[in-house]
Amino acid sequence: MVSSKFSECQTEKLDKTVANVVKLLERKGLTIATAESCTGGLLSELITSVSGASAVFELGICTYSERIKTEFLGVPAEVIQEFGVVSEQTAMSMVRGLKKCSGADVCVSVTGIAGPSGGTAEKPVGTVYIGFDICGRQFVKLPELWKSDNMSREHIRRCAAAFAFGIIEKTLMEANSN
Amino acid sequence: MVSSKFSECQTEKLDKTVANVVKLLERKGLTIATAESCTGGLLSELITSVSGASAVFELGICTYSERIKTEFLGVPAEVIQEFGVVSEQTAMSMVRGLKKCSGADVCVSVTGIAGPSGGTAEKPVGTVYIGFDICGRQFVKLPELWKSDNMSREHIRRCAAAFAFGIIEKTLMEANSN
Repeated sequence: MVSSKFSECQTEKLDKTVANVVKLLERKGLTIATAESCTGGLLSELITSVSGASAVFELGICTYSERIKTEFLGVPAEVIQEFGVVSEQTAMSMVRGLKKCSGADVCVSVTGIAGPSGGTAEKPVGTVYIGFDICGRQFVKLPELWKSDNMSREHIRRCAAAFAFGIIEKTLMEANSN
Repeated sequence: MVSSKFSECQTEKLDKTVANVVKLLERKGLTIATAESCTGGLLSELITSVSGASAVFELGICTYSERIKTEFLGVPAEVIQEFGVVSEQTAMSMVRGLKKCSGADVCVSVTGIAGPSGGTAEKPVGTVYIGFDICGRQFVKLPELWKSDNMSREHIRRCAAAFAFGIIEKTLMEANSN
């Protein structure tokens, strides 16, 4: 995993991107599931704001506490202890657990620091790890949201969502053209 | 349970109500959990949009499919078959399951028809059952959202959220004054 540039938070395109993701999933007969920490349900809320999402949306879990991450997604307590709850390893473990319990074709996990508090020198506000399992392809991304001009909680959360859906849209469209 | 009048959808007050609910929960040392169907994560998204919500927010589950309602919340398949997925009985069963798996002090479940499709003569768009377990007091409400002037999917969902948080705020404030 490398951190991903995200110079423009194209949140104004967010609704359009989400609608396109739902359309692509529907066309391909695929399902989607979400496991969210700092976005707190924003991803599932966006998916289900699209009429007809019930055909593709399998499960959304907001695992805010460490206990729930471990109990529901099977994230090992040792992973959280060693790497931190906001880490590449936790995001990967979350998405693997989500895949296991939902069986959805596309799984996405989010763990990060939306602020305004909770940031550190090593992991500033805007540090958001996003885990993906897109039809068996697993990876974690770290968009550089800490470089955003607008560091409000709402903006960081919406940027994380825009980034996540952007990656899913791109991957599904690439698969489309094959 | 009786259906509850909800002549005014005071969604413009929604953010303020949610912030007050989080403050009340924090002051009382209580936790909250959500199980959402038609609102799809809107309730958890609203709670976690308040900075500091991690102290009170335990778990949010979006159980869109019947399978997930049964597997994660233990809603008996017979309840769904007999009364329908949008029913008082399913809402109550969802909130009981949520209480069991989250252990949160305040649990809220939502199952309904946000539209634009899915409505029937018996259960029109805007039929939304909301289940509550507030510190052991369990009940289901049916706000008359089908009477709303604005029947858009977004408005129905926001009205359901405003109603749910309004009930929680009122109940916590009444407990406060005792």
